[in-house]
Amino acid sequence: MKAARTATPPSPLRIALAGLGTVGVGVLRLIEANRAIVEARAGRAIAVTAVSAREAGRDRGVALADAAFEADMTALATRPDVDVVVEAVGGADGPALALAEAALGAGKGLVTANKAMIAHHGLRLAELAARNGAPLAFEAAVAGGIPVIKGLREGAAANAVERIYGILNGTSNYILSTMEATGADFAEVLAEAQGKGYAEADPAFDVDGVDAAHKLAILAAIGFGAQVDFAAVATSGIRPVRAADIAQARALGFVIRLVGVADCQEGRLLQRVRPCLVPAGHPLAHVTGATNAVVAEGNFAGRLLFQGAGAGAGPTASAIVADLIDIARGTAGPPFGLPAPELAALPIADPGGRAGRDYIRFTVADRPGVLAEITAAMRDAGVSIESLIQRGRADEDGGEVLVAMVTHEGPERSVARALELLEGSPSLTAVPLVLPILRD
Amino acid sequence: MKAARTATPPSPLRIALAGLGTVGVGVLRLIEANRAIVEARAGRAIAVTAVSAREAGRDRGVALADAAFEADMTALATRPDVDVVVEAVGGADGPALALAEAALGAGKGLVTANKAMIAHHGLRLAELAARNGAPLAFEAAVAGGIPVIKGLREGAAANAVERIYGILNGTSNYILSTMEATGADFAEVLAEAQGKGYAEADPAFDVDGVDAAHKLAILAAIGFGAQVDFAAVATSGIRPVRAADIAQARALGFVIRLVGVADCQEGRLLQRVRPCLVPAGHPLAHVTGATNAVVAEGNFAGRLLFQGAGAGAGPTASAIVADLIDIARGTAGPPFGLPAPELAALPIADPGGRAGRDYIRFTVADRPGVLAEITAAMRDAGVSIESLIQRGRADEDGGEVLVAMVTHEGPERSVARALELLEGSPSLTAVPLVLPILRD
Repeated sequence: MKAARTATPPSPLRIALAGLGTVGVGVLRLIEANRAIVEARAGRAIAVTAVSAREAGRDRGVALADAAFEADMTALATRPDVDVVVEAVGGADGPALALAEAALGAGKGLVTANKAMIAHHGLRLAELAARNGAPLAFEAAVAGGIPVIKGLREGAAANAVERIYGILNGTSNYILSTMEATGADFAEVLAEAQGKGYAEADPAFDVDGVDAAHKLAILAAIGFGAQVDFAAVATSGIRPVRAADIAQARALGFVIRLVGVADCQEGRLLQRVRPCLVPAGHPLAHVTGATNAVVAEGNFAGRLLFQGAGAGAGPTASAIVADLIDIARGTAGPPFGLPAPELAALPIADPGGRAGRDYIRFTVADRPGVLAEITAAMRDAGVSIESLIQRGRADEDGGEVLVAMVTHEGPERSVARALELLEGSPSLTAVPLVLPILRD
Repeated sequence: MKAARTATPPSPLRIALAGLGTVGVGVLRLIEANRAIVEARAGRAIAVTAVSAREAGRDRGVALADAAFEADMTALATRPDVDVVVEAVGGADGPALALAEAALGAGKGLVTANKAMIAHHGLRLAELAARNGAPLAFEAAVAGGIPVIKGLREGAAANAVERIYGILNGTSNYILSTMEATGADFAEVLAEAQGKGYAEADPAFDVDGVDAAHKLAILAAIGFGAQVDFAAVATSGIRPVRAADIAQARALGFVIRLVGVADCQEGRLLQRVRPCLVPAGHPLAHVTGATNAVVAEGNFAGRLLFQGAGAGAGPTASAIVADLIDIARGTAGPPFGLPAPELAALPIADPGGRAGRDYIRFTVADRPGVLAEITAAMRDAGVSIESLIQRGRADEDGGEVLVAMVTHEGPERSVARALELLEGSPSLTAVPLVLPILRD
């Protein structure tokens, strides 16, 4: 068990940084501010030897004099004075992917915060890294500064993971928790969030669940020892959630959160991102604002919760530099926890047979017999209703009548069947909204 | 950056297990149940080659046929067929420490859940480990299955940690949250917890804050790169907390939790375990039952929360085997995050100058002038009162009158001074209780 000793001090870890936007500059700021701590924990000096960005000369408030500038980003990958490339460019494909492939192909380490790229190409990049003996790390790709990848891959490594779930998108959580606090509707809160810079001009990535799905796919791959499979994530977003749903949920003892859930039963993987009803006493119910939180349930550790800032320059830089420290120490293992060839190609589970409870909200015409029609369809499909609230015509609902119900536990396909029976009914003025109740 | 490759499969990691109580048997059960997962993540087979326990032959429901039995525990440390010793005996000194020293001295790895031993002797053991090139790991010593040592030491490694605090003792948290839920007093809930086996017959270790102080000292050493210094932890427990305090706190928007807090300002370390008032909206306020939760505040990552089961055979085994996986992979670094010689001997901070808010509860005689005397002492000591509740003589308080106040932020020494002014006053029928309000 004797560790190798060297008589000479270890050589610096030489880093090339691609991208000098918020994330890239955050990394430089962190290294500047915390250099003594970072180098002590890394056991080596850290030197940024080269950078690349669209504009060379712009003042970014950080010292770059010691770093060579490459106009061609991909050239960073083949510089002899570089050990690790930090990719802070973004985008699933294009220049980021080209750089990642070039760096790993050249045997350089790659550290990235790029969740889209890892969700889409993580398996191939992990294989490339393994073939070339190059470390690959992406702690910053999931939940910002929260060390949840390390926590799951190493901290919970001794467990068969039973379920992984969490609040993985800060923008959606900000919108939902603001709707909850103010009673405002989605569009209003989104506009306000856009005004404050909390949401993008095109918010689809965040509010339609795509960003959360990227992160869920990465977590699921690590937790279940599987090949990352973004295409298999069933995703729906928060746009259909109304202030009235949040109010009804509250009356029933729940809050609404966009939750990504992955589990593996009988060797089949189920990954879904959906707005869910979360019991008011559950730890995720207390997660408000742009915070992220991930729960991993292990067969020995029980329920582990990791919570913190899910985005931002500081938290992202914290995760990137933590990866760099692992690489500097030579302790970065396989990025998904298992050697790439051992990652399983898990088939997708059929959710239809899964038992669960749902919140179902109907928007209905205000006329006799509507309730009878809905409840008959539920009965015919074998859905058992636990509670039902009909809310009368109200101006703030545009004069619509809402019927909200919570089902008893039953197979998911029964609810789907009930909605099929009601499809095309003139009693319904809009497509019903089904929100699963998070299993505690 | 090429990793070393070996042509032959790696040899098994050979483990000796000292102690076959709850923890030791939990480790064996985990290895049995999750062997495929553990070995895949470790990249090597795991073999328990030797065990030691007080009774050799007892049936513990786990297979031990392949393991040699040593009546003399310390003999495990020198067996040639052992790479790592798992110490599951307990106790700060005595046989556990002798075994740890023998194992590390012989260049074997040591994995332990023994918080008392690490809190008291962690620095010396880390030095011994470093001198002998032997890995030392103790994830299970703090907060059971929650990978908070790894999270702090590696996940947050890029940060200057500003503060570490948390709920570190499950028994105390169970008692306080049960008092909160039921309105019962300490003695009653303790007796009930003892009956259920949630609290020891001698509960001092848990309810007087010693166990939490062990864990805090370990976390502080890692977070601040310091020599672990248990003797420097100022500790008070939950025995003086009454149901009436919990009710008053609730009326003021707080819950009461036993919180360990460590911070480092101007190179001086302050470590304290005390019952605190926690704002109802703070994540720690939602932590009920035997759960543990740790917050680490990093200067880039922001506030990171780690939460889960703080004790029990399963969670403890999960943490121990995670350490074994790190050792099997050769990625276990210095146990406190820095090489032992670099850990700083930090002087103890004087808390007197710290600014804070307090809850102060007086038990007073029911006669005129008492309030005037108390408030005059506060004024004379420069303590500014934010709110004050006098609660009249009530039978459930044994006919005592309680005066509870919350102070505005001010130096801690002012409150101490006010209490000095009141010392020996016949108006007070008991020593006042001061509970700090956790800074959000």
